[in-house]
Amino acid sequence: MIAKDEGIFCGEQIIQTGFRLLDESSQITQKVKDGEKVVKGQELALINGRVSALLKAERVVLNLVQRMSGIATKTNEAVRVLNSSKTRICDTRKTTPGLRMLEKYAVRCGGGFNHRYGLYDAVMIKDNHISFAGSISHAVDAVRSNLGHMVKVEVEIETKDQLLEAIEAKVDCIMFDNRHPDQIKDWINNVPAGILTEASGGITLDNLDSYSDCGIDYISLGFLTHSVKSLDVSAKVMAETEGAVAYEYIGDARSEI
Amino acid sequence: MIAKDEGIFCGEQIIQTGFRLLDESSQITQKVKDGEKVVKGQELALINGRVSALLKAERVVLNLVQRMSGIATKTNEAVRVLNSSKTRICDTRKTTPGLRMLEKYAVRCGGGFNHRYGLYDAVMIKDNHISFAGSISHAVDAVRSNLGHMVKVEVEIETKDQLLEAIEAKVDCIMFDNRHPDQIKDWINNVPAGILTEASGGITLDNLDSYSDCGIDYISLGFLTHSVKSLDVSAKVMAETEGAVAYEYIGDARSEI
Amino acid sequence: MIAKDEGIFCGEQIIQTGFRLLDESSQITQKVKDGEKVVKGQELALINGRVSALLKAERVVLNLVQRMSGIATKTNEAVRVLNSSKTRICDTRKTTPGLRMLEKYAVRCGGGFNHRYGLYDAVMIKDNHISFAGSISHAVDAVRSNLGHMVKVEVEIETKDQLLEAIEAKVDCIMFDNRHPDQIKDWINNVPAGILTEASGGITLDNLDSYSDCGIDYISLGFLTHSVKSLDVSAKVMAETEGAVAYEYIGDARSEI
Amino acid sequence: MIAKDEGIFCGEQIIQTGFRLLDESSQITQKVKDGEKVVKGQELALINGRVSALLKAERVVLNLVQRMSGIATKTNEAVRVLNSSKTRICDTRKTTPGLRMLEKYAVRCGGGFNHRYGLYDAVMIKDNHISFAGSISHAVDAVRSNLGHMVKVEVEIETKDQLLEAIEAKVDCIMFDNRHPDQIKDWINNVPAGILTEASGGITLDNLDSYSDCGIDYISLGFLTHSVKSLDVSAKVMAETEGAVAYEYIGDARSEI
Amino acid sequence: MIAKDEGIFCGEQIIQTGFRLLDESSQITQKVKDGEKVVKGQELALINGRVSALLKAERVVLNLVQRMSGIATKTNEAVRVLNSSKTRICDTRKTTPGLRMLEKYAVRCGGGFNHRYGLYDAVMIKDNHISFAGSISHAVDAVRSNLGHMVKVEVEIETKDQLLEAIEAKVDCIMFDNRHPDQIKDWINNVPAGILTEASGGITLDNLDSYSDCGIDYISLGFLTHSVKSLDVSAKVMAETEGAVAYEYIGDARSEI
Amino acid sequence: MIAKDEGIFCGEQIIQTGFRLLDESSQITQKVKDGEKVVKGQELALINGRVSALLKAERVVLNLVQRMSGIATKTNEAVRVLNSSKTRICDTRKTTPGLRMLEKYAVRCGGGFNHRYGLYDAVMIKDNHISFAGSISHAVDAVRSNLGHMVKVEVEIETKDQLLEAIEAKVDCIMFDNRHPDQIKDWINNVPAGILTEASGGITLDNLDSYSDCGIDYISLGFLTHSVKSLDVSAKVMAETEGAVAYEYIGDARSEI
Repeated sequence: MIAKDEGIFCGEQIIQTGFRLLDESSQITQKVKDGEKVVKGQELALINGRVSALLKAERVVLNLVQRMSGIATKTNEAVRVLNSSKTRICDTRKTTPGLRMLEKYAVRCGGGFNHRYGLYDAVMIKDNHISFAGSISHAVDAVRSNLGHMVKVEVEIETKDQLLEAIEAKVDCIMFDNRHPDQIKDWINNVPAGILTEASGGITLDNLDSYSDCGIDYISLGFLTHSVKSLDVSAKVMAETEGAVAYEYIGDARSEI
Repeated sequence: MIAKDEGIFCGEQIIQTGFRLLDESSQITQKVKDGEKVVKGQELALINGRVSALLKAERVVLNLVQRMSGIATKTNEAVRVLNSSKTRICDTRKTTPGLRMLEKYAVRCGGGFNHRYGLYDAVMIKDNHISFAGSISHAVDAVRSNLGHMVKVEVEIETKDQLLEAIEAKVDCIMFDNRHPDQIKDWINNVPAGILTEASGGITLDNLDSYSDCGIDYISLGFLTHSVKSLDVSAKVMAETEGAVAYEYIGDARSEI
Repeated sequence: MIAKDEGIFCGEQIIQTGFRLLDESSQITQKVKDGEKVVKGQELALINGRVSALLKAERVVLNLVQRMSGIATKTNEAVRVLNSSKTRICDTRKTTPGLRMLEKYAVRCGGGFNHRYGLYDAVMIKDNHISFAGSISHAVDAVRSNLGHMVKVEVEIETKDQLLEAIEAKVDCIMFDNRHPDQIKDWINNVPAGILTEASGGITLDNLDSYSDCGIDYISLGFLTHSVKSLDVSAKVMAETEGAVAYEYIGDARSEI
Repeated sequence: MIAKDEGIFCGEQIIQTGFRLLDESSQITQKVKDGEKVVKGQELALINGRVSALLKAERVVLNLVQRMSGIATKTNEAVRVLNSSKTRICDTRKTTPGLRMLEKYAVRCGGGFNHRYGLYDAVMIKDNHISFAGSISHAVDAVRSNLGHMVKVEVEIETKDQLLEAIEAKVDCIMFDNRHPDQIKDWINNVPAGILTEASGGITLDNLDSYSDCGIDYISLGFLTHSVKSLDVSAKVMAETEGAVAYEYIGDARSEI
Repeated sequence: MIAKDEGIFCGEQIIQTGFRLLDESSQITQKVKDGEKVVKGQELALINGRVSALLKAERVVLNLVQRMSGIATKTNEAVRVLNSSKTRICDTRKTTPGLRMLEKYAVRCGGGFNHRYGLYDAVMIKDNHISFAGSISHAVDAVRSNLGHMVKVEVEIETKDQLLEAIEAKVDCIMFDNRHPDQIKDWINNVPAGILTEASGGITLDNLDSYSDCGIDYISLGFLTHSVKSLDVSAKVMAETEGAVAYEYIGDARSEI
Repeated sequence: MIAKDEGIFCGEQIIQTGFRLLDESSQITQKVKDGEKVVKGQELALINGRVSALLKAERVVLNLVQRMSGIATKTNEAVRVLNSSKTRICDTRKTTPGLRMLEKYAVRCGGGFNHRYGLYDAVMIKDNHISFAGSISHAVDAVRSNLGHMVKVEVEIETKDQLLEAIEAKVDCIMFDNRHPDQIKDWINNVPAGILTEASGGITLDNLDSYSDCGIDYISLGFLTHSVKSLDVSAKVMAETEGAVAYEYIGDARSEI
């Protein structure tokens, strides 16, 4: 398995699990670890096993490794562009249905951090929720009276009044929605220690560096996972004496992982 | 549900199925059909249902609709760039694991065509297979003697000798792998009627138009599905009297689709 | 469906879902709501439907309703015994495999609160983890550097030194493990606002009232879910003209929910 | 794994399967067999494996082992209280949904016997069925004409007339529902050899001994499985050099069995 | 749906469920009931629904209906050939993996009876078990001491000594394995009332009538389910105005039930 | 495992997988390969493993092996009766729901070939489709404009006009539905090279030889899979010292594969 482009590799477990699903005895020598940088032409892993299993697993494994490496690479680029000692890059729930665990892992491999995994591990109170509840404090009260104490509550704010209301409600995290870095820099002084801050909305690789010193704790970026350019990876099969097996495979190509 | 960018919409069934999974009685008015062009700000669908169901289904539905619309949009761009009356754009198996059916459908909505769906509906004999079998004719023989007569066989070729050998073997389809348009134009005259032709490898939106008149039947493009920029779509909830329900939701946000 | 003992009812959704699984057209009139007190002989629900469906679903529905009502009743008893305006009763992960969601819901119906649902929504650093990591601060650092910022971290402490170390590490919650109420009362003054406190270990209905005014935020009780006395509930079928159907059922009693 | 209370152990297979699910190479030395008595502080099993797997499997394994041991202990108590050479203790279908196989196994480990497993392995004709069918003989006829000859039929009776009707119908088993031991002793002389007898309803550990010599074959007790007090069992992790692994676990505590 | 041969119809539920799986609104008018005789050319059912759903479900529904009707027809033939007022025809476990419930139902529709469904609803002690246990009485003791009292025990016998041993062991049922009708007639006088008898082994439609008056209770026939000649049934689609839908189907024929 | 009749064996993988599912360490020595002829009394395989696992897996494994061997045997008979160097025997979709993959494999083992596997790997345009579409050419156009180029299209014809229309439409395969061998012989001269031909309908083992020299490429036979006479195979357990295990099994016979 060879990288055909430069980037951050991610997918060790996919390679291990994918090939072993079809051939338990296949032997895999990993040449690069998750999160390491690879260059064009670099060998990623050496897989030894039954030809038919390799050929059947190949496409699915590559599809996953390429996507995960693409996400790790893009995340890493965002971290480098931001270039901040305080502010961290994190992901969103804008992931591929069915692959969220893998994609969030890839974000970590690229140097990013994970926001919540789903509706089950943290609560995000958004504009819709606030308008239903009547006010931030009402919404937070509703959540607090129903949910266990081990679940964090975050609130999206767009105005300074909302910011102050959220602080008053002692939420665990405040998200500055579509706010300019200068505004964040100004408003953030009102946030007491103990409340985390996050910026989101309208942030791209082009304007990311303008957030470097606005003092926010986290910047969440949907494009890390929803607009991925896969890292090009290919598998080259080097056969020796397995001709017979290969024949058999070709004639029985009915299933893949 | 509103488009926040311009492109080709795809995802009617996702919207219908997604929201009804959580609220069977939700009513959905589709404003745009799959394959239609949408502009920024255009209304895509109107969903009426229980607030808690809408909020839980929203993220997953959006993630899928955005990806499918992104694929349809990219495919449509490729079709327009190619601008050929003879040659068709088609997809590959470089799709997201678990979403292949949806992604291949999106390609069709964008004006493209589908290559095989998996290892089960057609056979592709690649360089690895050929080297195992010793020659194209050996590989084709092996396949033909094992497989049913209803399954098409395609062979990848890189040299003129391979082309002639494939023609001799009476395969159903020949894929010109990484060949320059001029070379294709030259070689393709050797291919008799009844054998389809396909070009693949190294073809991007930048050089796609150079293939417009090389006479090939199909051009397959991996980037249609492996490097997708989601079309931005958002859901705006317009509530009226459901405050109580919303409260209940906020406090019970444990599951999503 | 009739209560045969006194307690807190819990299981509306079980009744609705259970009977409708086998007979979609069955009509259910709920006479008591989740969390309400019932007395011996009180009617809980009236179910109208195909006799064969009722008889097949009956045992499974009753088994669940009895257990959930038993948990709600026991929780309610604990809340009344504790009789504290500040301290709340909460559950643990000592639940029945497969039924955790239902059992935690029953705890809420009884007036209790939910601790974390699993390993995925909060981190609990226990003595084993601390000894592996070398110290509380090392353990907290390890968690914090790997986990997203939306996940709360709780630490179990047994000594005052550990308490101070946990406070220093700015954890979200501190659990006083097997500490006497007097000790808790004494130590808790060191805990700054913003850190929640929990008592656990060796607390029974007999000694629970001694924790009423020790100032702790939560008391977690394993026995709420691991040692349940089901609330006795029975189903009485009142038939009229369905004799024929009943015959058919008796002879075909091969499956239940 | 250590018992923290006295009772009958049950759960060997749970320990074996539970830990191996997460770490195939874990080595488990069982110190106590299913059905053996354990005392407080006694070592139950020694598990050697990857720390992260142990910590993830621990809670679920303990929840099951505690419940099963609790059932075995309670059953054993009932057997000792009854103290009869003829009459056997058996269970009911009042089990935890999803765990019936395990709970019925635990009853056997405690010295009890199993009644039917579900609606599929034996037929119980209850008062509801009888009133639908018009009479016991009608109900038995209906069953006999539809069911295979390998399935036993039991009838619940409350009056002497019903008893005689059931005997006349040649059922395989007769259940004396809520009958006083003296009444059973009196009526049971009418039952011919070849028909089994069972007592059920209103029998507790307090009055169980009064049934010791009433001549019934089986006494079925719902409380064996529906009102279980778990036997307290704890797992103590004794680490040596796996600090690094533990760290990794703490930071990745996203899943459990 | 039309019968193309003469026999016993079986499959009402398959038709109902099969078509509704793909088109909930399809309307089905059953013309024949399960167990009724049909003649060549007879209309079995009228199905009204979306053409695409009909065409996708057709093959699977037909495959099941044909097999079940074939089993019902063969069973019915056996019942008629046997022509006994005492002895009943029953099935075995030699059924198609995955279809046992359906095939055993078809046997009942043909006038046969069901032997046990699996290893879970009755015990059959065969020659292998007896040789392991040392003797029939040892084997029966082993079963009786482990199994609940609601499960019947049958023993296979081949010699008169075994017969007497089985009677002595008070089994519920005795199976005469590969015994000639005359031998059965002779031996069966030893069997007391209360023990059922079964003949099996080497019985075909050709020699079945010789068992008519040998006094056995049941004859079990493996060929009822393991060597089935499907009853020929075909589906004729009568379209009117749905041309457009049909087109759509043809082009999207990717899935079936 | 021993053959009790003469035929073609099929089921190596079933034996391997079936027994290993219940006892991973069981050792299986295959004495006959798939597709080989066996005679009555011939040893097929030697299985060594835990008695309880063997006894539980036995019935299901035998049911499958007998059916697959029955199909292979019947197919082989058809191949021998046809006795043609040009024409091949193939299967249909008239297979047992759930077992299609296994049954189609058995056809190959008997010397037959596979027609399409489902609606997903080839398109068959039947009389119903043609009447919806208005004509063969309309139906083929509809398919061609919607489906990928890698999927073959076959058309059923009953008249010479339909034959010529299908040829005109350049389908991949033409099926002569219920045509007499003489008619096929006459019409087939119109079919150009490059279009495959198939005969189906009303063909039995009795008239199959009349098709030997009619020049058709394939004859598809539904009875290969829909009316199977299982090849009789039995399993004989030869125990030595495992008496204790066997006891345990008998008393715990609750589950099978």
